Amino acid sequence: MKRTISEIGEFGLIRMIDELISREGVVAGDLKLGIGDDAACFTPRGGFELLLTCDSAVEGCHFIPECFTPGEIGRRVMTANISDIGAMGGAPKYSTISLGLKPSTRVKDVLEIYRGFLRELKPFNASIVGGNITNSSETFFIDITLIGEIKKGKAVSRSTAKVGDVILVTGYPGEAAAGLKILLDDSNNQYLKGGKLVQAYKNPSHRAVEGRAIADSGYAGAMIDTSDGLLGDLGHICEASHVGAELIREKLPMSDELMSTAGDMGVDPFELVLGESDDYELVVTCAPENKNELKSIINSINGVPVTEVGRLVNFSEGIRIINPDNGSERLTPSGWDHFRQ
Amino acid sequence: MKRTISEIGEFGLIRMIDELISREGVVAGDLKLGIGDDAACFTPRGGFELLLTCDSAVEGCHFIPECFTPGEIGRRVMTANISDIGAMGGAPKYSTISLGLKPSTRVKDVLEIYRGFLRELKPFNASIVGGNITNSSETFFIDITLIGEIKKGKAVSRSTAKVGDVILVTGYPGEAAAGLKILLDDSNNQYLKGGKLVQAYKNPSHRAVEGRAIADSGYAGAMIDTSDGLLGDLGHICEASHVGAELIREKLPMSDELMSTAGDMGVDPFELVLGESDDYELVVTCAPENKNELKSIINSINGVPVTEVGRLVNFSEGIRIINPDNGSERLTPSGWDHFRQ
Repeated sequence: MKRTISEIGEFGLIRMIDELISREGVVAGDLKLGIGDDAACFTPRGGFELLLTCDSAVEGCHFIPECFTPGEIGRRVMTANISDIGAMGGAPKYSTISLGLKPSTRVKDVLEIYRGFLRELKPFNASIVGGNITNSSETFFIDITLIGEIKKGKAVSRSTAKVGDVILVTGYPGEAAAGLKILLDDSNNQYLKGGKLVQAYKNPSHRAVEGRAIADSGYAGAMIDTSDGLLGDLGHICEASHVGAELIREKLPMSDELMSTAGDMGVDPFELVLGESDDYELVVTCAPENKNELKSIINSINGVPVTEVGRLVNFSEGIRIINPDNGSERLTPSGWDHFRQ
Repeated sequence: MKRTISEIGEFGLIRMIDELISREGVVAGDLKLGIGDDAACFTPRGGFELLLTCDSAVEGCHFIPECFTPGEIGRRVMTANISDIGAMGGAPKYSTISLGLKPSTRVKDVLEIYRGFLRELKPFNASIVGGNITNSSETFFIDITLIGEIKKGKAVSRSTAKVGDVILVTGYPGEAAAGLKILLDDSNNQYLKGGKLVQAYKNPSHRAVEGRAIADSGYAGAMIDTSDGLLGDLGHICEASHVGAELIREKLPMSDELMSTAGDMGVDPFELVLGESDDYELVVTCAPENKNELKSIINSINGVPVTEVGRLVNFSEGIRIINPDNGSERLTPSGWDHFRQ
């Protein structure tokens, strides 16, 4: 099937997407009306609150089409949204998809993008309930809105961290940034390009199941996902909670792959760990007396490593990193700014 | 203030938008967390169902920037979303906004777009609770997701029309299409360009308040808003409800402005009334015995005219228009297809 969208038209494409979702997706039990009406309609569950997030991906800015299969693009954008719901402690439920497509796009590729969405939604019994397709002749974009649910009063904000809380981090932030560097590297090292770091960039995992368990435990002070990078997202917690932070350099989690690749590329591995990187790991804070229990709750789910990297201090101290010689440096979180010049 | 986004950066822009929304927007009472966290969080009301829709606008496809002020662009996209919630009978509550912006965009223009959103949301006490801003260097786009609520069991679908129902239409579909024709016309008739038809295109009204009253009444068989044009959207009802339709040509509503402008431009006015046009009027069907009461309910709200234009027949008869000589023609609904060649 090599047909393009301009050949089958908007309504023809919508029909094919609708069929794909009916065949391969999940229908939530409390959905009253899904795709095909002016709006979807569902009955929210009693005792639950709803979470609402949106995230988009734009060709050229968020992904270079040559580096991704259509299915990978779909998975990646949906993962970013699931990660946001998970970072509040919620479970994804309903999603709407807006696509801006070029008329020359192949129908097959659009369906593969949807398969990518469904692959990420299915483990949560979450479904696509609506959307919008439009002609965007210059730039291909995907915008996803995801609704999640969480038990009343259990949502974990980024603004409720307390001075004295320890800072925990899941996984290995910075791997996605390293993977992107490898992909963009001209030296064309095929061994590295098929490796773990590139996978961390192309097919990142979210920690939504862990996030839900963290919220359920009641131990978390604040929580956020690392989509701007460890320092950038810790900075968001500090700003929103009006606290400072102290990171211990030798405690920062660093995978062997990251360390050796940073060496090969002549890059400071700590810059990768702290800097802009969209790994969709979690940064969680909690009172010191609960940290061991919280760590074992997180670790028990999928065996994801959890590392204690520092603690929260007074706002006026800003964010500092403590070096092995006990000297310290002040860090300025930047985060991924789409418009930085 | 002539600053561009690239000068103040993504986070600077988000801060300004956040301040604008706090200052000029509405905060819904049951919102627990709004802008500034990984996701917004709200408590759905007991006894209500939720409606979910999304609609986007892409520069060059949905609007020509030269013809609109930023505020008008904002109002127009939000109106399209409110219209979808209204066409189910619901009231708008929470919205998220995804913007794809060029780095050269002026900050002032982005804030004016948001003022346009707020202006449409405010009458419903509805609020913007989150969003996403991204760099889209070639194409400016806006994608809105809107959540509405409706009393349990009251939502009106497009798929529940019945053979024998009469077809009612609010306002004057086709005026927006006529307005667009005037705008695109080279003759540069400034009198017409400032007139009612151009306003119908640039600043369309939704009928969400009327839609809610229609749903509340319980009289509606099916309902849809006219965003694809009267024939296109009636076609959606017919397809979804598996019915046909018979329209009476001389009953089709036509404003004096539309009639005279069509004459001036040498266009068949019926083509404008039936064809592609995004007026955001309502098409409602109901049992004949309820039509007078339903018409007076709709008309009592803002005095919007309601016209009975025909009735629903068996699916096999398709959609036909009855001419004054009692002859009839079969019509093929097309609707606005963004990818038609």
